[in-house]
Amino acid sequence: MVERCTSPIVLLCLFSFSALTLAFSPCPLTGLPLVRNISEIPQDNYGRAGLSHMTVAGSLLHGMKEVEVWLQTFSPGTHTPIHRHSCEEVFIVLKGSGTLYLASDSHGRYPGKPQEHFIFPNSTFHIPVNDAHQLWNTNEHEDLQVCIRGLVRASHCSESEIPLLLG
Amino acid sequence: MVERCTSPIVLLCLFSFSALTLAFSPCPLTGLPLVRNISEIPQDNYGRAGLSHMTVAGSLLHGMKEVEVWLQTFSPGTHTPIHRHSCEEVFIVLKGSGTLYLASDSHGRYPGKPQEHFIFPNSTFHIPVNDAHQLWNTNEHEDLQVCIRGLVRASHCSESEIPLLLG
Repeated sequence: MVERCTSPIVLLCLFSFSALTLAFSPCPLTGLPLVRNISEIPQDNYGRAGLSHMTVAGSLLHGMKEVEVWLQTFSPGTHTPIHRHSCEEVFIVLKGSGTLYLASDSHGRYPGKPQEHFIFPNSTFHIPVNDAHQLWNTNEHEDLQVCIRGLVRASHCSESEIPLLLG
Repeated sequence: MVERCTSPIVLLCLFSFSALTLAFSPCPLTGLPLVRNISEIPQDNYGRAGLSHMTVAGSLLHGMKEVEVWLQTFSPGTHTPIHRHSCEEVFIVLKGSGTLYLASDSHGRYPGKPQEHFIFPNSTFHIPVNDAHQLWNTNEHEDLQVCIRGLVRASHCSESEIPLLLG
């Protein structure tokens, strides 16, 4: 998948860096290491059964000002609520499979009939701003693990749950 | 890693979704499928030897308005230029190892002596706004593959290469 060629090396830059020693400096904002092992990031389910949530990069913990990255795992049969938010999200499916329900272009109180999309390992999709959506682990044999990234939850990025979709 | 509990199912929502059939609708903006196989995304090296770049979610191809996600692979010995940009980036190391050079809090013309950080599989780090940085695959035996996400390259997110770091 990767083209292998000889890289042109900028010698001045190489020299500038060659005398450095390894630094394990903490993040100046939070005291956490700058480079963090994802396996050691705490998990929470926020009261939602079957969910495991990790904040890989977040505003509170890591001082992010623009983007956040989450890692979420859904046990078989579990799902998000139907919801929408005023910021984009990009998903990458790391493991497992499931179903995305997405009601595009329907930003009213009742977003209408959603379309059903099969999601699979190594697939990606994004949720447009304010499109109502729901993610289900519809594979009864395996966890569904997704990596999600979007904007820091600022005031312009509000979220709401939708009690019922009416077709 | 995942807590397994019985999920409370909202029956009305389940009913609402149960009659749907699978949809393979294309993205209304670009004609590409909403759910895409990352393995099939075209790669480019943009003239930089040893680099493979994939736009997993981007403004031009996928109509992203806020966030972009890239997948980049560096062959052994290759690297980015020393550069900085006016938007945050979050990295996840998917494969391989290498070195991040980061000159924090030095936003002048010459950003000063960078710190050197070892990066490893399943690690994450972020680049604060305007911090000069460079990523090297310093592992001569393996490709370095990273997933990068940041803002869509809007006018407020400019990028510049820095010819030389002066300590």
